[in-house]
Amino acid sequence: MTRKRTDRSKSEGEDRLFQRIRRTLTRDKSQLGLQLGIGDDAAIWRPRPGYETAASCDWFLQGSHFLLDRHPPDSVGWKSLARAVSDLAAMGAEPRCFLLSLALPSSLMITWLTKLLKGLARASAKFKCPVAGGDTTRSKKVLINLTVLGECKRRHAILRSTAKADDVLFVTGRLGEAELGLQLLKQGARGSKAPALRKHLYPEPRLSVGAWLAKRGFATAMMDLSDGLSSDLARLCRASGVGCRIEETLIPHVESGPYAAHGNPLTLALHGGDDYELLFSVSPRNACRIPSRIGGVSISRIGEVTRNSGLRLVRSDGTVERLSAKGWDPFRT
Amino acid sequence: MTRKRTDRSKSEGEDRLFQRIRRTLTRDKSQLGLQLGIGDDAAIWRPRPGYETAASCDWFLQGSHFLLDRHPPDSVGWKSLARAVSDLAAMGAEPRCFLLSLALPSSLMITWLTKLLKGLARASAKFKCPVAGGDTTRSKKVLINLTVLGECKRRHAILRSTAKADDVLFVTGRLGEAELGLQLLKQGARGSKAPALRKHLYPEPRLSVGAWLAKRGFATAMMDLSDGLSSDLARLCRASGVGCRIEETLIPHVESGPYAAHGNPLTLALHGGDDYELLFSVSPRNACRIPSRIGGVSISRIGEVTRNSGLRLVRSDGTVERLSAKGWDPFRT
Repeated sequence: MTRKRTDRSKSEGEDRLFQRIRRTLTRDKSQLGLQLGIGDDAAIWRPRPGYETAASCDWFLQGSHFLLDRHPPDSVGWKSLARAVSDLAAMGAEPRCFLLSLALPSSLMITWLTKLLKGLARASAKFKCPVAGGDTTRSKKVLINLTVLGECKRRHAILRSTAKADDVLFVTGRLGEAELGLQLLKQGARGSKAPALRKHLYPEPRLSVGAWLAKRGFATAMMDLSDGLSSDLARLCRASGVGCRIEETLIPHVESGPYAAHGNPLTLALHGGDDYELLFSVSPRNACRIPSRIGGVSISRIGEVTRNSGLRLVRSDGTVERLSAKGWDPFRT
Repeated sequence: MTRKRTDRSKSEGEDRLFQRIRRTLTRDKSQLGLQLGIGDDAAIWRPRPGYETAASCDWFLQGSHFLLDRHPPDSVGWKSLARAVSDLAAMGAEPRCFLLSLALPSSLMITWLTKLLKGLARASAKFKCPVAGGDTTRSKKVLINLTVLGECKRRHAILRSTAKADDVLFVTGRLGEAELGLQLLKQGARGSKAPALRKHLYPEPRLSVGAWLAKRGFATAMMDLSDGLSSDLARLCRASGVGCRIEETLIPHVESGPYAAHGNPLTLALHGGDDYELLFSVSPRNACRIPSRIGGVSISRIGEVTRNSGLRLVRSDGTVERLSAKGWDPFRT
């Protein structure tokens, strides 16, 4: 409790910060369902009739999730919202508004914050997800927590715990690309011309794929890939009480050619985090109804769900091995 | 981005932490409206017909909001939820579920975390507000962010921006008590026998008062007192485009006798933070219908809303002075 009081009742700092957030982030007026936005003790929100609310929150911390000297501030703003929105995409829900909890040092209150809010505003407009409230304070490092509220049709949310044996497993996009982008960034790459770097800095949550699947009821289970396929697939299987078998040759990965120095593309695809692609299962009956692209995003079949627990990887030579969870875990030493 | 990967696929640390949170916090089964709780990408929530969702989030950070060596961990757990719930009380809403974002060092993962979760579980049961989801990660200091979802009748939420000139101003409880409790704590007081210490460590959000007022439609505006009366009253007046005049002799404060060394009780009441009492305005016509106690909590008239902006304090000798915002502001130096 480091409360400091002064008789010089100068800058109402927290209120000024709040006003800046409000000015920058509430230009987008698409406040579908939002009855009361930023500025009161709480936001008031109401989904359309027949819909229910999906809610998720995500840390985005300096030093853990981004590096102050490497990640451009507008990427920090964009990504903090994109990764929270990705959780809603993974339920087949659509984002509607967000609460921003922001703590930062005074030294970043001018230029850095302006750029952060610009990236956040761009993401907010892109995902049609306006700010509805939040909390601000000061801290030595930048701390961000994003809560996103969205809506999905009643009983149409796609869970991660409902995959069944023999279901076919699919993923969107190319895996391992964001991890490659992180490596490029650490080696000094700038700008966002390289697709991998762009994917790491400005991920695009797969909202259209999630909505497409929710509307048609094809996915028996779904989650987003934030920590890496090997870790997240293990979570989906554990939640569903099943196992799986995926095939090395089916996993969509980056090309090895230009980035050979950055490791085996398959290793990146199996264990690299931050992709924010979707992993979903479909009954064998419906598997043929999944197109190769949805809303411009490629869809790849990677294997199937098995009755026996455990994750198996079929190598290109036909040998089968156990797949261990080696994605990102902040508590692993 | 400090992602570390290891071939020793040992402790799935984040998943284990998540399991502990789930085990400790989901004993309370009063999950009114919660369709899908902790364990998926997002929680799914639905208020009763005719109600809408109130959502708020709050930081609770080591070093800023609590001291690791002074605040008992179960108080940290209790208070992190209590202060978020207080935001809903201030809208006249009832809490229904919460999302827990928790980051902490590995060294606190055993004993300290167990006690934290115990305090949080106690608050969760008391406020009938079960956990619905969250996010966990590792950090050097303890970082907590709490998002609470609740419900209030459609169009019955009590805003802070709707006070009118001549409205009568009220507060609940005794002000400055939590600030006194903080001072006692810093001086080494332990246990929770002293009411001020108890109020600082285990605040009780004024849910029953908020609900009583929302049901009857008496309050024209309301907010909770988290940063101190002088700062929060300024916010309510600014949001409503009004001013106010409050009377020194009417402000409920702690007795000076036993705690004379801890400063002027009036100063504590005007500027002390963390009380989580409610501040509300009532039209002159309805002011007489506000009882002196609601649900066991004392209610005090402290002054009235004025057309002219600015906060005025009427001293006991009848002189009037300008009241400056000197409550807590993390950005004030």
